[in-house]
Amino acid sequence: MAHTERILMGPGPGNPYPEVIEAFTRPVIGHLDPEFIELLDDLNDRLRQVYRTNNALTFPISATGSAGMEASFVNFVGPGDVVVIGINGVFGTRMADVAARCGAEVIAVEEQWGRAIDPQQLLDAHPNPAIIAVVHAETSTGIRNDIEPLGEAKGDALLLVDCVTSIAGIPLEIDGWGIDIAYAGTQKCLGVPPGLSPLTVSDRALERLRETPQSWYLDLNMIRKYVTGEGARAYHHTAPISMLYGLHAGLGVVLDEGLENSWARHAAVGGLLQEELPGLGFELWAQEGHRLPQLTTVTIPDGVDDVAARHELLDRYGIEIGGGLGPVAGKVWRIGAMGNTARERNARLLLAALAQIVKRG
Amino acid sequence: MAHTERILMGPGPGNPYPEVIEAFTRPVIGHLDPEFIELLDDLNDRLRQVYRTNNALTFPISATGSAGMEASFVNFVGPGDVVVIGINGVFGTRMADVAARCGAEVIAVEEQWGRAIDPQQLLDAHPNPAIIAVVHAETSTGIRNDIEPLGEAKGDALLLVDCVTSIAGIPLEIDGWGIDIAYAGTQKCLGVPPGLSPLTVSDRALERLRETPQSWYLDLNMIRKYVTGEGARAYHHTAPISMLYGLHAGLGVVLDEGLENSWARHAAVGGLLQEELPGLGFELWAQEGHRLPQLTTVTIPDGVDDVAARHELLDRYGIEIGGGLGPVAGKVWRIGAMGNTARERNARLLLAALAQIVKRG
Repeated sequence: MAHTERILMGPGPGNPYPEVIEAFTRPVIGHLDPEFIELLDDLNDRLRQVYRTNNALTFPISATGSAGMEASFVNFVGPGDVVVIGINGVFGTRMADVAARCGAEVIAVEEQWGRAIDPQQLLDAHPNPAIIAVVHAETSTGIRNDIEPLGEAKGDALLLVDCVTSIAGIPLEIDGWGIDIAYAGTQKCLGVPPGLSPLTVSDRALERLRETPQSWYLDLNMIRKYVTGEGARAYHHTAPISMLYGLHAGLGVVLDEGLENSWARHAAVGGLLQEELPGLGFELWAQEGHRLPQLTTVTIPDGVDDVAARHELLDRYGIEIGGGLGPVAGKVWRIGAMGNTARERNARLLLAALAQIVKRG
Repeated sequence: MAHTERILMGPGPGNPYPEVIEAFTRPVIGHLDPEFIELLDDLNDRLRQVYRTNNALTFPISATGSAGMEASFVNFVGPGDVVVIGINGVFGTRMADVAARCGAEVIAVEEQWGRAIDPQQLLDAHPNPAIIAVVHAETSTGIRNDIEPLGEAKGDALLLVDCVTSIAGIPLEIDGWGIDIAYAGTQKCLGVPPGLSPLTVSDRALERLRETPQSWYLDLNMIRKYVTGEGARAYHHTAPISMLYGLHAGLGVVLDEGLENSWARHAAVGGLLQEELPGLGFELWAQEGHRLPQLTTVTIPDGVDDVAARHELLDRYGIEIGGGLGPVAGKVWRIGAMGNTARERNARLLLAALAQIVKRG
């Protein structure tokens, strides 16, 4: 099969950093090899810097972001536990599904798609929930939900945050904002292909770890023995060596650039798109003041065919953008600029390509 | 960090085929890109050939082998279901743990570690179990359990088989032997780094799929819509693109060599080790007639220090072998020859290195 090159401007994956692809070619060694353990420790240190946390239990789950979500619930939520979940898109909806499968009593705080959730509504939803859960960057709508006010007023609840699309793309402070459990994806602003889910768990949350979660694969009691080396490096499952090489390298790129510079680059490229797209007839769809720079949502102008236009972008320009999900399928586009994709040149090319397509549409 | 090269002769990972590492460098494209869907379809066709099955639902789970195990139980087993499990090593034990977390009534058919399970005992354990589960190649002991008699006499039960270490290493016939659910690993005889778990499910098993399994990430009702394209290619989770490139290439290597030639190569290299090791003072530990060629277990000779000797192999020769697990820790070694490691030259080097170490020990 031919190798096709794309500029990945959808909701993720974005284009990976070349250093990550190079790391995939590193010789495979064993998951108990002392040199691999050293690399894993170093990876987790890098992850703590990118997450801005001192949490001892910080490591990548051996599966994609949605498994990180499942690990975040299944280890802390059991039958009858009250979980307050903010829902204003696909991923909040998914959280509610995952929590319900753990037997939780889910209290949904719903907001219109494309608008941010009011933190006070989450705080007022129940007097004493086990967990308050919310998505930081809703990949289905391009909305940033506010996290900081939740950490300040969470009381006895654990604060659980989906950071799949926010990590390395916008400011995120695990310790500074009082987040207890967070998971992320690699394929968005970290510039690594999909396959792992960086997780971090506060000491406060660790005290509430369930003894035997319903998932064996995601059981943090067992995994932490391998990851942190408490007692011994007990084997749990075989670590996905090559993917971990890639994430190690990707975190290195982010830290070499500087985390705040990574945020600034995403802000600049997203800002450029959001400044220029209205001039082409695209209306910015997400609520002003809560727009993600790394994922811009726009309404599709009248006369532009959703599927045909996206096919033309893909076939003629090699650019992938994302269609709308759920209630806004066919109505909005999702335009990402994440990781190595977040470059001015990619934004300029997309704008030029869209100008051609819209003119004719 | 320096890149260290190892000859991986432990219980897995083995050394990957170079074509697999090359495939990791393929440009990342989106998980809904038509060209990616084409590659995934082709991958699944290759997998059917290696599994010797026509099962429509044949694809890699987006996580390592143990997640394949969990997917195999969680989609078919609920509270009170009777599951008969053969246990003669770590992975049978793990199956029982996973099934119990689904609420199953587990009937364990135990056999001494290092000996094969009598299929008749599994068949006699319960008059009408929902599932009979067994490990084909026990990576903890080097034992091959017989599968074929189970398929012939399983009755109404589903036959669930762990093929993590057997796939591409010894004869395995999903359809021919009447296996209903099977999962595998990539990092053993397929010659691909760890990270995915090839799964296959018979139509008969699909009729008994649970409506809402306790795991969202492993929910086959949802995943199959993406994998098989029934209705539409509905997005479930982001596919681990680069790992899938690698598996696609690894399956290509196996099929180019010829599946039966791959079995024969593993048989030859394992046979050589098993012929020569006794002359160096190592006693073959696994039951004769049920020894895996891809994983040879030997008792450590008197006077040879387990940990020191393995460290010397690693540091002086760059060869990794595996220690014993559980009750045989410190007593046996596990010597793998899997995938790209299963070459006469690697076996000869290991034998030469061991001769040096044993002479002095």
